[in-house]
Amino acid sequence: MTDEREPIRVGVLGARGRMGTEACRAVDAADDMELVAMIDQGDGLFSASDAAAQVVVDFTTPDAVMDNLHWCIDQGINVVVGTSGFTEHRLDRVRTWLSHKPQVGVVIAPNFAVGAVLMMEFAARAARFFESVEIIEQHHPKKVDAPSGTALNTASVIAAARVEAGLGDVPDATTDEMDGARGTRVNGIHVHSVRASGLVAHQEVLFGTVGETLTIRHDSYDRASFMPGVLLAIRSAVQRPGLTVGLGALLD
Amino acid sequence: MTDEREPIRVGVLGARGRMGTEACRAVDAADDMELVAMIDQGDGLFSASDAAAQVVVDFTTPDAVMDNLHWCIDQGINVVVGTSGFTEHRLDRVRTWLSHKPQVGVVIAPNFAVGAVLMMEFAARAARFFESVEIIEQHHPKKVDAPSGTALNTASVIAAARVEAGLGDVPDATTDEMDGARGTRVNGIHVHSVRASGLVAHQEVLFGTVGETLTIRHDSYDRASFMPGVLLAIRSAVQRPGLTVGLGALLD
Amino acid sequence: MTDEREPIRVGVLGARGRMGTEACRAVDAADDMELVAMIDQGDGLFSASDAAAQVVVDFTTPDAVMDNLHWCIDQGINVVVGTSGFTEHRLDRVRTWLSHKPQVGVVIAPNFAVGAVLMMEFAARAARFFESVEIIEQHHPKKVDAPSGTALNTASVIAAARVEAGLGDVPDATTDEMDGARGTRVNGIHVHSVRASGLVAHQEVLFGTVGETLTIRHDSYDRASFMPGVLLAIRSAVQRPGLTVGLGALLD
Amino acid sequence: MTDEREPIRVGVLGARGRMGTEACRAVDAADDMELVAMIDQGDGLFSASDAAAQVVVDFTTPDAVMDNLHWCIDQGINVVVGTSGFTEHRLDRVRTWLSHKPQVGVVIAPNFAVGAVLMMEFAARAARFFESVEIIEQHHPKKVDAPSGTALNTASVIAAARVEAGLGDVPDATTDEMDGARGTRVNGIHVHSVRASGLVAHQEVLFGTVGETLTIRHDSYDRASFMPGVLLAIRSAVQRPGLTVGLGALLD
Repeated sequence: MTDEREPIRVGVLGARGRMGTEACRAVDAADDMELVAMIDQGDGLFSASDAAAQVVVDFTTPDAVMDNLHWCIDQGINVVVGTSGFTEHRLDRVRTWLSHKPQVGVVIAPNFAVGAVLMMEFAARAARFFESVEIIEQHHPKKVDAPSGTALNTASVIAAARVEAGLGDVPDATTDEMDGARGTRVNGIHVHSVRASGLVAHQEVLFGTVGETLTIRHDSYDRASFMPGVLLAIRSAVQRPGLTVGLGALLD
Repeated sequence: MTDEREPIRVGVLGARGRMGTEACRAVDAADDMELVAMIDQGDGLFSASDAAAQVVVDFTTPDAVMDNLHWCIDQGINVVVGTSGFTEHRLDRVRTWLSHKPQVGVVIAPNFAVGAVLMMEFAARAARFFESVEIIEQHHPKKVDAPSGTALNTASVIAAARVEAGLGDVPDATTDEMDGARGTRVNGIHVHSVRASGLVAHQEVLFGTVGETLTIRHDSYDRASFMPGVLLAIRSAVQRPGLTVGLGALLD
Repeated sequence: MTDEREPIRVGVLGARGRMGTEACRAVDAADDMELVAMIDQGDGLFSASDAAAQVVVDFTTPDAVMDNLHWCIDQGINVVVGTSGFTEHRLDRVRTWLSHKPQVGVVIAPNFAVGAVLMMEFAARAARFFESVEIIEQHHPKKVDAPSGTALNTASVIAAARVEAGLGDVPDATTDEMDGARGTRVNGIHVHSVRASGLVAHQEVLFGTVGETLTIRHDSYDRASFMPGVLLAIRSAVQRPGLTVGLGALLD
Repeated sequence: MTDEREPIRVGVLGARGRMGTEACRAVDAADDMELVAMIDQGDGLFSASDAAAQVVVDFTTPDAVMDNLHWCIDQGINVVVGTSGFTEHRLDRVRTWLSHKPQVGVVIAPNFAVGAVLMMEFAARAARFFESVEIIEQHHPKKVDAPSGTALNTASVIAAARVEAGLGDVPDATTDEMDGARGTRVNGIHVHSVRASGLVAHQEVLFGTVGETLTIRHDSYDRASFMPGVLLAIRSAVQRPGLTVGLGALLD
């Protein structure tokens, strides 16, 4: 009983980055958590174990995240990952590591905003009812990757739902395309990445069938919108052994 | 066995109206249906029973629909209703009538477009995660009612989900409002009705919480988009005794 | 010559409010300006004249702004006003005051974001080509007035353009309206005010005619977006005697 | 005087296509025009001259249109062209032909909807105030070319306005792009082409600068929306010798 009321000890990797800074602030402000380690490039991971962190939050880079994850799982530390770049191949490696440490909980989420999580859930649900679907994601022009991790993940859940429903390719009569006009294809789904000053992080999923379209749009105006999801993931990681991909399963 | 392959005998009430005309055309084109009666103002309902209609589709008016429903249920004819104006009070009366004719199936739907049905389902699901929500519906300027039946229904499912989740009023600091600026309130949900030439039938549900919004938008470009839903409702009415409100339950 | 290179001496009224704080920061950061007075409730206006302010920026309240303006004009100080609530009647009073001080420049703008200024310019231009037009403005739920000053101003320029083009009322067959559903009417133009958490400041102007619509939308994500316009207005106020309403005339 | 009241004699090329059919209908319904020739593949152009057509409307294909234009100009017949695919090179050839027939009027328009014409005008005007701009056009999936002619034209007027204003490239930090994600580049402007069932013809131009975006969106719901513009172009062609590109100049 008393144990449950003790704050969760949290370390943050990438603590000086944009998302890491916000995460430190949010953990610090949460009644049920204690920020015990702020780690960035040049710092040793061991300071997380020295500080007896129960959960490590990783907002680093695709290059660094796998080593971090491996080390944390090895140390028996639960992990919440917000870093992008998780392919099915990478997820499999994490599952293998976890098979040797079955008590460790890892939550990997492409997006921590509740609206983005619902957008992906709704996209998966709507997919089988519409012959057409495209994704348009829009971000500030300092973003280095295109498409965004959220767009890749959305395309992947839509594609899976279409396969399950027996839908084939989206209809497309384009024969005369200027290079790139129809976007990139992610598992057969066309994805368009818009970059413009003023924008923050936005995504639109457009479904179409005869005579009607259904659009699901998420707008993030502020990194603060991600923090309730990060805290939810931290609380879940200590109670939910094994790998959880996406916040969807944690919402209910 | 053989019976199941015989076409469903369908009558249409309001057959000369815009939706009725489309419904007649769609029934006529469906392999598993036969259009046996087209009834409009001045025609007697009995021609539906004379023609041995198994299902009557009602696209009439709020004034006429209750009498039509009562008569059809009495005659043991299943009914699909696309006419708007169904309050909880009216639904209760239909339930009472059906209690005396338990074999009759009635499907009442505020909107037959699959995208609109999903929009309402998603709105009900998202409602508890966002402190703010508003509905903006947009139609051609020949529409006589504001808000639309679909908007009223959406507001009602959102309001119910908010009550269940223990959410109170939406935040709103407005103290200086020009009359009507904040729209109408439907069960506490603000609803705005836009009317403009060029538009067909559109609705946006906007959810907001700290730092993010989630928007679900449905666009009907063509009345043809309603017809797959009308045919689905007809097929369901003959197999599903009792009252079904909304197409949601029929999608799966 | 040398004079022109001396920084413009600027005082800010409402200096501790949200917009005032940003304005102080922007003036302070501008090479060609010097922030000489920060004045808020309880401070005397005379500190602006004591500090030899050449321009006073007013981000106060509709209650306070007219007294501030009168005093500044009287003192021969140029003024930039971002406070809302300027009716034609109020503008006339300002013109009268200025007639006795013809060398003083006053710029009153409902919105300092370049995108908002263009939105109003485009709305005025498009108005005569479309029989239908409606305004939907969307803001955070802490806003006290509905509609926004920008929406009122947009409606007013559209209404004037319609009159000039000989257009009558917008088409609208609504006979069955729930109170407020069709929004408020500003000079005959329907205006809808949406309030939701997560939103900042947004406005959509929807024009419609047979078979097509044209939408002009402005999104402010950050008060920072207003500051280039505020600085432009300050520079103009010292060089442009008389009353200027809106930034439109200053853009070119 | 009397001459002016005689109907304009109009021939339509591509008369059995989707746009041609609408054009025939619109000309037929116009009080001040007479439809004197409907010509399609397999018919000879000479039937236009035999019928003494004063204006020929061309809704054919990029392959056929140049021969048609050359022949009409040679015969002294005015032409309105709605066929897409007009490069600067093609326009130069038309100008050369017209230099030998200075009395002939040719109107070439990428889009005849008034809303689309205004969208392009507004895009050209806004371009210099925003460091970022992208175009997203959305059409039904039967369209064969991507981007649309309207998008190409919009990109071209924006690019010209940016050059004139001394703006360089749009900001874009993308270093990790999946092939096509950032769309195609038209004169340096990123253009994205979305194709989905249910859609008709839509385009969004998104401008961005610090803290704000301005979006201009045009929706065509119906080919009928093009016809007022086609009739306007026909009336102009007989009164305005030489080449006119775009309807913009004709609106006022």
